Amino acid sequence: MSTEDDAFSRLKPNWKLWLEHDGKYVFGPGAFAILNSISEKGTITDGARALGMSYRYAWGVVRKIEQETGIKLLETFKGGTEGGGGARITEFGQRLMNLYASVQRGFEEASHGITVTS
Amino acid sequence: MSTEDDAFSRLKPNWKLWLEHDGKYVFGPGAFAILNSISEKGTITDGARALGMSYRYAWGVVRKIEQETGIKLLETFKGGTEGGGGARITEFGQRLMNLYASVQRGFEEASHGITVTS
Repeated sequence: MSTEDDAFSRLKPNWKLWLEHDGKYVFGPGAFAILNSISEKGTITDGARALGMSYRYAWGVVRKIEQETGIKLLETFKGGTEGGGGARITEFGQRLMNLYASVQRGFEEASHGITVTS
Repeated sequence: MSTEDDAFSRLKPNWKLWLEHDGKYVFGPGAFAILNSISEKGTITDGARALGMSYRYAWGVVRKIEQETGIKLLETFKGGTEGGGGARITEFGQRLMNLYASVQRGFEEASHGITVTS
């Protein structure tokens, strides 16, 4: 393998993906991870904690997206078997997550499928 | 169209793509634009100027990539019909550009092909 082939073989694409709303940054990898974690854990507090974040920070990220889009991403409720209530992702929040995940998956496939000849 | 459908329809994916060499940032949209402009204009000075950059800045970007990969991206030469010499992209530089452009094209296709149902 030539020095150039060796250098070339050590190159790997990477990227940051985000969603814009009317051209303005609104939803990136951090927000995706937060919603995903809240969805898994069932409360904002536990979802934030699993990512090493405070409730305040996680909720701030979500609220900013809600303000920008004008639509709620989370529904909170009281009670339940544990008595402590919880949070669930709204249909709109789920659509945002699905869109983000679909594009991300498409990018992963596109970045793996690349073959470049010199 | 519901308020949610309207908000959703105003979302658009955007991204920044770069290449890493051994996991380290090495080649992004700025470097691509610089090499492309030098290739079109035939000299570093004219290529940089067409992007509103100084020779020093453009050459610094290129040199940093050369140092990181250990391979030259530009060959400079003297003379020619105009007498002023010029710069051309090496084969390795062209391979870097082709790789970047291929992934970018794949991402554009992937981001357009997304259909997400609620």
